[in-house]
Amino acid sequence: MNYRMILSLLGYVLLLIGGFMLLPCIVALIYGEQELYSLLAAIGVCALIGLPLILLKPKTRRTMHARDGFVMVSLSWIVISLVGALPFWFSRAIPSYLDALFETISGFTTTGASILTDVEAMPHCLLFWRSFTHWLGGMGVLVFMLAVVPMSGESIYLLRAESPGPSVSKMVPKMRTSAMILYAIYIAMTLLQILAYQLGNWFGWGEISLFDSLCLSFGSAGTGGFSVRADGLASYSSYVQSVTTVAMIMFGVNFSIYFFLICRKFRLIWKNSELKCYLGIILAAVALITLNLMLTGGYFRTVGEAVHHVSFSVGSVITTTGFGTVDFSLWPEFSKVILVALMVIGACAGSTGGGIKVSRLLILFKYARAEIRHMLHPHAVEVMTVDGKRVSADVIRGTSAFLIVYLFIALFSIALVAMDNFGAETTVTSVLATLNNIGPGVSIEIGPMGSYARFSALSKVVLSLDMLFGRLEIFPMLLLFRPSTWRKH
Amino acid sequence: MNYRMILSLLGYVLLLIGGFMLLPCIVALIYGEQELYSLLAAIGVCALIGLPLILLKPKTRRTMHARDGFVMVSLSWIVISLVGALPFWFSRAIPSYLDALFETISGFTTTGASILTDVEAMPHCLLFWRSFTHWLGGMGVLVFMLAVVPMSGESIYLLRAESPGPSVSKMVPKMRTSAMILYAIYIAMTLLQILAYQLGNWFGWGEISLFDSLCLSFGSAGTGGFSVRADGLASYSSYVQSVTTVAMIMFGVNFSIYFFLICRKFRLIWKNSELKCYLGIILAAVALITLNLMLTGGYFRTVGEAVHHVSFSVGSVITTTGFGTVDFSLWPEFSKVILVALMVIGACAGSTGGGIKVSRLLILFKYARAEIRHMLHPHAVEVMTVDGKRVSADVIRGTSAFLIVYLFIALFSIALVAMDNFGAETTVTSVLATLNNIGPGVSIEIGPMGSYARFSALSKVVLSLDMLFGRLEIFPMLLLFRPSTWRKH
Repeated sequence: MNYRMILSLLGYVLLLIGGFMLLPCIVALIYGEQELYSLLAAIGVCALIGLPLILLKPKTRRTMHARDGFVMVSLSWIVISLVGALPFWFSRAIPSYLDALFETISGFTTTGASILTDVEAMPHCLLFWRSFTHWLGGMGVLVFMLAVVPMSGESIYLLRAESPGPSVSKMVPKMRTSAMILYAIYIAMTLLQILAYQLGNWFGWGEISLFDSLCLSFGSAGTGGFSVRADGLASYSSYVQSVTTVAMIMFGVNFSIYFFLICRKFRLIWKNSELKCYLGIILAAVALITLNLMLTGGYFRTVGEAVHHVSFSVGSVITTTGFGTVDFSLWPEFSKVILVALMVIGACAGSTGGGIKVSRLLILFKYARAEIRHMLHPHAVEVMTVDGKRVSADVIRGTSAFLIVYLFIALFSIALVAMDNFGAETTVTSVLATLNNIGPGVSIEIGPMGSYARFSALSKVVLSLDMLFGRLEIFPMLLLFRPSTWRKH
Repeated sequence: MNYRMILSLLGYVLLLIGGFMLLPCIVALIYGEQELYSLLAAIGVCALIGLPLILLKPKTRRTMHARDGFVMVSLSWIVISLVGALPFWFSRAIPSYLDALFETISGFTTTGASILTDVEAMPHCLLFWRSFTHWLGGMGVLVFMLAVVPMSGESIYLLRAESPGPSVSKMVPKMRTSAMILYAIYIAMTLLQILAYQLGNWFGWGEISLFDSLCLSFGSAGTGGFSVRADGLASYSSYVQSVTTVAMIMFGVNFSIYFFLICRKFRLIWKNSELKCYLGIILAAVALITLNLMLTGGYFRTVGEAVHHVSFSVGSVITTTGFGTVDFSLWPEFSKVILVALMVIGACAGSTGGGIKVSRLLILFKYARAEIRHMLHPHAVEVMTVDGKRVSADVIRGTSAFLIVYLFIALFSIALVAMDNFGAETTVTSVLATLNNIGPGVSIEIGPMGSYARFSALSKVVLSLDMLFGRLEIFPMLLLFRPSTWRKH
């Protein structure tokens, strides 16, 4: 393990986060909030630790092995959470450091599970920072660093560890250009969403303050889900809710699709089976849940109203955002099972969303089908393709291994959280909602209108780790728990 | 598809089942029960359909392809369930045919999920038949046929489809001898259990009638779980309960182990990692649940009492038997999560138990570990071994595919059963309890003291199919749903 290199990179990450904390400082100045000093203190901590670490530059040439890269990413995410929680704790807005850490990990990992019980009592600058962690975590802190800091070495490992999906799709051969394109699309789309909200103000379709539209855009872009009102998005106008629905679903799409769009490669978009599958699942889920709710009765007055809120909820859950306009934890069981399935499926690879990812599911599905054929015709040679391209044996094996480890971690976490005795629905969906970076579960306790405040310290630690496991797609975090990772080689 | 051959084999299966129905006839004669006529009528049906089918012998040489074998096994299990349900229906002991079919599938698949609400009102001969289906289904009806009917052709497919586990371990090269050895061990162990119960009578350790000891032995041997009293095994003596605990755990062991024991190949037993893992899981689960119950308090007075009942429950659940001495659906959540995990894990391959099987889990676990190493050292060659023997790529791929399809089926079933709106715990564990052939779930509704009577017709059909999917380990049943299976080749 190249400790000097990792520590020096961690120094850069710390300075970067400290730099980003200047943004909420501006908000504090605008609103004249005294939490400014807590933010400045946190920036001070970042600088005090970060600057000396940078000086630890390795003397030899920087070569980064797979293991170093993965460990580096996991450690970065832990470090940014540790310092990102400081403003909440210093200002006593969240008196317990563990709770502040939970909230920050939930922010960076774009989970959106909150321990706050009164979100409207928070000062603006901290709400801004809380939502901004979503935006940063969505595309990835290290991807950002790759885009701005010129780095040598095999930085592919950093990108691979932080980008969701079974295989990294570099848009252009150069790593740094790829990272820049990703962030450019990301920033443009976020600005577009803010603009769409403002259009509602200008044309009188629905009021929303600039502050709220910033925070909601950060929450949708990162597929995070922290909102700034106690009732989530319930009290905003239908227009604001609809804009959010469309935005969430768009941020759940693989960003390569937008790159293809810019390059006018429409054929590649049309051929993309993950996109078709993703949109198909959304449509099917909206249809089934609307049908279930209308047949059960008592939830919505008109089909239109039902479709509006069901689309929002489905979009929110499959993209693992976790915003809510209604409390879907009160819906009938069939609808809730579909929502839980969507939670696990998650968004497209290469998006800011979490979950297992549609493309992994496609691979697993095709793999199972090929295996059944193989069982019947043992001597036939099977070639598995997605989008006309052959899927390598490595990707298939990695994907199955991912599923297996995912199940082991989920089960282990459920057993530990079960000690809180909150009932099966809360226990199971709290783990699924954090491991897949959604936020709310489907029980009333932790539903869209609930909170994670009542969990024990042990459960909060377990769920925090699950959020990190989910965001980094398991393997980088898993390495931290392997003793051989820390041995000298 | 070789339809003539399949139909003629189905004829033999029908006659075999008709023949086995003579046993409950004897019980009916002893107790002077008029349900004798329903049994005789059912035997008549078997003969009337079975005899003409036998005459359909194919004109050409019998060659059996993988597909034919798998389809044959699935159809056999459906046919024996259809006729096995007749005595219950003819006698009006179970007035609805669907309910009778559910009960019979539950019997043959050794699930033990019951729609009966008053089991003690049933006549002896039908209770005997109900328990005897467990015994028959445990080792497999076709394995029995292989042992008694001289068959040419590649009958390995029949054995493979009906024997649980990722790979078939033929004990001796000859198929028929293997089947005979299996049944010989099975019969000897069942007799041993009956004898152990009788010892209790003779030495005054605990009363149990000969009828009850037969039924309970059939239920343990097949890891089924139908009991003959309303409160399961709660009202029997501790001695009877302890004998059952040991018996259940023994029937969950791979039968090869007993063959090695007879051949005095102790080194092979000692080296068997599945056995070690299975016993280790049982010990760990008993320790954790006992600890949880004693710390929570209010369940048992002494640790001894707790260990007694927890061992019984753990043995009952991991072997997928489903007997109960206490209602574990009332235990705290942590204990229930462990029980649900045991349900899914299941017993050893090559035993009469259900579930995913310990050996599959071992393979998946080692596979995931190898994949993580591969991710870090892409150029290293990994060889996976279990018990010192290399695991073939086919077995690994088949096992991952099994897991994937298993999850798809579980999710699909949960969505359909959820329409009954019984709550998450009942819905999810009803599917897991049937798909893994356990019987009771961990909610009060369908716990060890509950019943499946209140489910809708749709759910009963879904759960019945799940039982068949579970018993035949998914793939043979799956073939029935593939259109290409029925095409002429």
